[in-house]
Amino acid sequence: MKARRTRARARGARRRLVVALGERSYPIELGRGILAEAGPAIARATGSGRALVFSVPGVARRYAPRLEASLRRAGVEVERVLVPDGDATKNLDQVRRLYSALLRRGADRHTALVALGGGMVGDLTGYVAATFLRGIPFVQVPTTLLAMVDASIGGKVAVNLPEGKNLVGAFHQPRLVWIDVATLASLPRRQRAAGFAEVVKAAAIRDRRLFRMLEREAEALLELRGPLLAVLERACAIKAQVVARDEREAGLRMQLNFGHTLGHAVEQLQRFRGALHGEAVAMGMSFAARRSEQLGLAPAGTASRIQALLERFGLPTELPDFPRRAYLRAVGVDKKSRGAQIRYVVLRGIGRADTVPLSPAEILSEPVGAGPAAG
Amino acid sequence: MKARRTRARARGARRRLVVALGERSYPIELGRGILAEAGPAIARATGSGRALVFSVPGVARRYAPRLEASLRRAGVEVERVLVPDGDATKNLDQVRRLYSALLRRGADRHTALVALGGGMVGDLTGYVAATFLRGIPFVQVPTTLLAMVDASIGGKVAVNLPEGKNLVGAFHQPRLVWIDVATLASLPRRQRAAGFAEVVKAAAIRDRRLFRMLEREAEALLELRGPLLAVLERACAIKAQVVARDEREAGLRMQLNFGHTLGHAVEQLQRFRGALHGEAVAMGMSFAARRSEQLGLAPAGTASRIQALLERFGLPTELPDFPRRAYLRAVGVDKKSRGAQIRYVVLRGIGRADTVPLSPAEILSEPVGAGPAAG
Repeated sequence: MKARRTRARARGARRRLVVALGERSYPIELGRGILAEAGPAIARATGSGRALVFSVPGVARRYAPRLEASLRRAGVEVERVLVPDGDATKNLDQVRRLYSALLRRGADRHTALVALGGGMVGDLTGYVAATFLRGIPFVQVPTTLLAMVDASIGGKVAVNLPEGKNLVGAFHQPRLVWIDVATLASLPRRQRAAGFAEVVKAAAIRDRRLFRMLEREAEALLELRGPLLAVLERACAIKAQVVARDEREAGLRMQLNFGHTLGHAVEQLQRFRGALHGEAVAMGMSFAARRSEQLGLAPAGTASRIQALLERFGLPTELPDFPRRAYLRAVGVDKKSRGAQIRYVVLRGIGRADTVPLSPAEILSEPVGAGPAAG
Repeated sequence: MKARRTRARARGARRRLVVALGERSYPIELGRGILAEAGPAIARATGSGRALVFSVPGVARRYAPRLEASLRRAGVEVERVLVPDGDATKNLDQVRRLYSALLRRGADRHTALVALGGGMVGDLTGYVAATFLRGIPFVQVPTTLLAMVDASIGGKVAVNLPEGKNLVGAFHQPRLVWIDVATLASLPRRQRAAGFAEVVKAAAIRDRRLFRMLEREAEALLELRGPLLAVLERACAIKAQVVARDEREAGLRMQLNFGHTLGHAVEQLQRFRGALHGEAVAMGMSFAARRSEQLGLAPAGTASRIQALLERFGLPTELPDFPRRAYLRAVGVDKKSRGAQIRYVVLRGIGRADTVPLSPAEILSEPVGAGPAAG
């Protein structure tokens, strides 16, 4: 009786979603403690008898052995390729080194790459997979919250140039996204909080019910308790839906940039040494929500709910103090700009986003920076 | 009366094909002296108000002014970016230099790249277009025969690594292929002949009528007379059909590799300093046609027709003298291989190709190299 219940619970704790992209469709599997079961799923999804696990040393030490053992049990030959930790690794020199590593190991177009780690590892692995031999299969095994709910889904892969972030990339969909929430236990609290910024974003733009669930359970979720799996499933489902409807960011997918226009500006102005990405996005979302109210697009109270929720996740909601002209310049060079106008993402209310064409000056007509004037 | 006839002839001399790939479909336009009319078509196909023309100095001097003037007349802002001539240019250092050139010129995702030149320029431009900002529009304006009938159509773009050719690349379809056969006049005769190797290939694998037309008119065609436009149109149509049915080379598209398994081996063994690509493919096709007969797949006489036609275009049909073990190794490392077996392209007759799984040793069971034994 007990065994049956345990198995039922284990089954209940597994969730499966699909990113519906025709012949490029792929599953997202979520669960707690499922890392050691990834092997057969990866073998099935890629059709490969050979896999290279790309990771950074810290993550590999903790999680690669279980993943690799599972792949071997599934009959897949595995080798590990390590890259240095940190976003600076995501560059073309590293890409070139990885091409050579693949060639030395005799990789061909049927070899699968498995990205085990956060967004940096996923982006770098995905970019190599997109371009080596004109594209080989790859799988995302995200181990950070940010990567789980956002970066690992949707096939946007990229590396940085000295001139800026993510300037070189591709759309290359993974064959599978395998999410073991147990790997979050080793994630520092600040990183966890930053990950929740993208969960709040997903709720803010598409799902009032999820937003209310976050409002009820913020503190428990931040401690990885409460309805964590259900919340992540919902956030992944939102991302999957948006990607399925607009794979190449021609329209709807732009809504995922909610909070990112100012968020990117903050990261740039701080030379990527200040706020984490999720923290910068939290600042950008607060700003965008206030701006949505000021423009008469969102009902009064929208911005304060966004801000209050972000603060409960320990996230910053005020833009750092840079001169307005610095923000104007930073927003103007955002690569999503078309000429003078930007498709700025606003809220029509909690759970409903829209884009409006605005110039940087129009976006920034509100005073920026901390202090009462920014409230 | 005279004016009307001239216009009718001009109209008659324009051909339009479509590569049918759903939302990625694009036209191929062929004509004589149509370079100066490319501007409006490029503007329409890309929706861009800004274009960068990528070319090599020799080609640019001859043809860029007419193309650029036409773009400007169509309201498109144009700048020119030159790369050094030669296949060695097709590398990641050059790609990086081009990314920086794009950024310095303020290129964004709506800027179109126009490849004016041969296969090298098309491949390099296409690869930069595929990866800059996750993909920007590009147009092929091929000026060599090889690029017109083969390289510019189908979206296979790539650059070389020190370890081998075309190891890094993407499938990125152009928005338009604009073919002015008048640009062939400046092409050296040897390059012209090498281009006809791919025309013979197209006929051999898919079109007996085209093959017979080539048999009737080889000498005139080599002098750019005879039914040149009709022949190029047919060769382009064959490539377009194959690509439309199998964009990512999962099956049918492999037939385009007819003659390429041994052709690539020859190029490698000569370290790319001997035969031109088309010449190597001519050798590979002769070999493959003989092998098809020996395997009982093609009727007797098939190989001699292939060989005779290639010779009339001044193309070599015997493999150069390298030890059999050198060929075995070169064929074995061909990146299209899967494990031990290669999907080798054979003929079932003139105009009908097929693939058979063979090991390098099975492919090379016939003695290779010049001399009576190879006949």
